[in-house]
Amino acid sequence: MSYLGVGVSPGNVPVYHGSNLKVIDRRVRLAELVLRCVICGLAILSAVLIGTDTQVKEIFTIKKKAKFTDMKALVFVVIANGLAAAYSLVQVLRCVLSMIRGSVLFNKPLAWAIFSGDQIMAYLMLAAVAAAAQSAVFAKFGQTELQWMKTCNMYAKFCNQVGEGIASAVLASVSMVVLSAISAFSLFRLYGDNKEKSSTRW
Amino acid sequence: MSYLGVGVSPGNVPVYHGSNLKVIDRRVRLAELVLRCVICGLAILSAVLIGTDTQVKEIFTIKKKAKFTDMKALVFVVIANGLAAAYSLVQVLRCVLSMIRGSVLFNKPLAWAIFSGDQIMAYLMLAAVAAAAQSAVFAKFGQTELQWMKTCNMYAKFCNQVGEGIASAVLASVSMVVLSAISAFSLFRLYGDNKEKSSTRW
Repeated sequence: MSYLGVGVSPGNVPVYHGSNLKVIDRRVRLAELVLRCVICGLAILSAVLIGTDTQVKEIFTIKKKAKFTDMKALVFVVIANGLAAAYSLVQVLRCVLSMIRGSVLFNKPLAWAIFSGDQIMAYLMLAAVAAAAQSAVFAKFGQTELQWMKTCNMYAKFCNQVGEGIASAVLASVSMVVLSAISAFSLFRLYGDNKEKSSTRW
Repeated sequence: MSYLGVGVSPGNVPVYHGSNLKVIDRRVRLAELVLRCVICGLAILSAVLIGTDTQVKEIFTIKKKAKFTDMKALVFVVIANGLAAAYSLVQVLRCVLSMIRGSVLFNKPLAWAIFSGDQIMAYLMLAAVAAAAQSAVFAKFGQTELQWMKTCNMYAKFCNQVGEGIASAVLASVSMVVLSAISAFSLFRLYGDNKEKSSTRW
């Protein structure tokens, strides 16, 4: 397997001589693949747990149904996790393809695209989780100063499932944060070789 | 001014030959300094706007006072912005010192420390802003499904000032996100020179 692709890569790409850099590169790619699979799984789990969560409560003769669309933050989490799952799936395919081909990422525009995508996803997921966690705290404990009453003692089953969904989303976000550091590494090390004339276009 | 420090830097550091890399480096450092100053200012502004915000309302004979500690998310924003301001101030001093000395960041442990600090700050500030924004939406529009009433028509002046504080915090977070990409660039390009034997310790 032509793992390194030395000689075929265009322009000012790092040329590998140290064997421990090969090992680092392989570990980084493996970590990336595993993390992307984990994120995909956790994001789907979170979106399904929150998106399918409903509970009907009968108060005298009035039926009240709790569903995730009652709270905008939960809709935001479901959308963010849906996007993250789709994005991760595409990225997993790209990782597998590049592993099969044995090519190394020396393409700056592609590295920039992956880096930007990962950053946006990490911040999006984190913001969604923070907003949902804040809503969950209000629902669980209420806010007596503002006379917002807690609703989780009425809809206990609903709240528990949302809690599981948020926990799953937190794990997915943390994985995404680690992953965005990895893609930053993959991108910016391309700017480190300064022996040849640089073609950076900043 | 010995800007590059070529020849005195230890180990496997990138050696600069291309003059446009010098220009990039200078621009990156200037952008970093400006952003850190901006973040420091915005974070202080946000913390002061929210932290000093109070409004007293008299309903019949009962006096009610709204303050930022009534809502945990606002306390979180004030703490996060206070931390960010202090952190940015230290970093500004470091930037100015390294500019006066004319040294370039080739120290991997220091670059890792700056990168980690910036990442933590960026995610912390974003999470705080998202939670506070969610709370502000509840306060402004209420949540009729849960019978949480809007409180901003009662405390209009208080809410407006909190809104300004959150807007300032949003700008500070966005600047921190850009800055964390810059520090990722400063760190990971150190891993790019592969011509000599690498001393990476992964």
